[in-house]
Amino acid sequence: MGLFTKDIKNMNDLFLHQLQDIYYAEQQLVKALPKMADKAADKQLKQDFLFHLDETKNHVQRLEQVFQQIGTAVKAVDCPAIDGIIEEANEVAAEVADKAVLDAALINAAQAAEHYEIARYGSLVSWARQLGRSDVAALLQKTLDEEKVTDRKLTTLAEGRVNLRAAS
Amino acid sequence: MGLFTKDIKNMNDLFLHQLQDIYYAEQQLVKALPKMADKAADKQLKQDFLFHLDETKNHVQRLEQVFQQIGTAVKAVDCPAIDGIIEEANEVAAEVADKAVLDAALINAAQAAEHYEIARYGSLVSWARQLGRSDVAALLQKTLDEEKVTDRKLTTLAEGRVNLRAAS
Repeated sequence: MGLFTKDIKNMNDLFLHQLQDIYYAEQQLVKALPKMADKAADKQLKQDFLFHLDETKNHVQRLEQVFQQIGTAVKAVDCPAIDGIIEEANEVAAEVADKAVLDAALINAAQAAEHYEIARYGSLVSWARQLGRSDVAALLQKTLDEEKVTDRKLTTLAEGRVNLRAAS
Repeated sequence: MGLFTKDIKNMNDLFLHQLQDIYYAEQQLVKALPKMADKAADKQLKQDFLFHLDETKNHVQRLEQVFQQIGTAVKAVDCPAIDGIIEEANEVAAEVADKAVLDAALINAAQAAEHYEIARYGSLVSWARQLGRSDVAALLQKTLDEEKVTDRKLTTLAEGRVNLRAAS
């Protein structure tokens, strides 16, 4: 990004910038999810984190496919939002003494990341359609759907068991 | 938060910590929304940001009411996630040359903030219920509903007009 020039001149540029942003975010989550799985005490939660790690690795590859389809080099740009979400997750987790409460905190942290991705992929899908790239929109929609399923799965686990244990 | 002690010992502590976190986040959004309204070219978008600014001020007061109802002092803790989301919004906005494209970027930024809040309030409502505080859960649910409405309103505006203008 230029210091004295405005580098986003049209919707293609904005789309590409946010693609590079979410590419960075997915890579950070590939690093964060194994640590979250390690910290989780609930077996199902641990398993859900590891399952989503595999999905997330696939999301990275799907983004690389999008870069290829639009004919641009694969590139990541720093994403202070996901950095902040992960930093906050680590800070809170480090403060939690009780294992059951930590599980509730981990779900909370994961859902912040999921919602960040839902917001970003939601816009990317809309923009791709507007730019006449239904092929790219369809690919990104797959990831969006998986993020939404993950978010719902975490809510079900939290409300079905984890919160109850944490509050008892 | 203690440097050598783990300060979150139970669900009440986790609830309180995340309440202080979202209280900080809402305060940052009260500062950010007028600037976003200033930057918006689309009249409806400008109006939506100003309407949501009023709602956000009300969310701050609602949180103060929650602090009061649970008998604790009103306090904010730094929230790196919302700081990152706002920092990223500013960085991207500063790069956009075209007014119509900037509107699309502003909606994208606002939806990242909305989704952060949806994730946080979602957990807070669940936790309040689990902790037997349906009075507090009902208050927080009101805010959660308003954040969801705002998010949907922004999607409608983006897909109905803003993205079309930005891509033309």
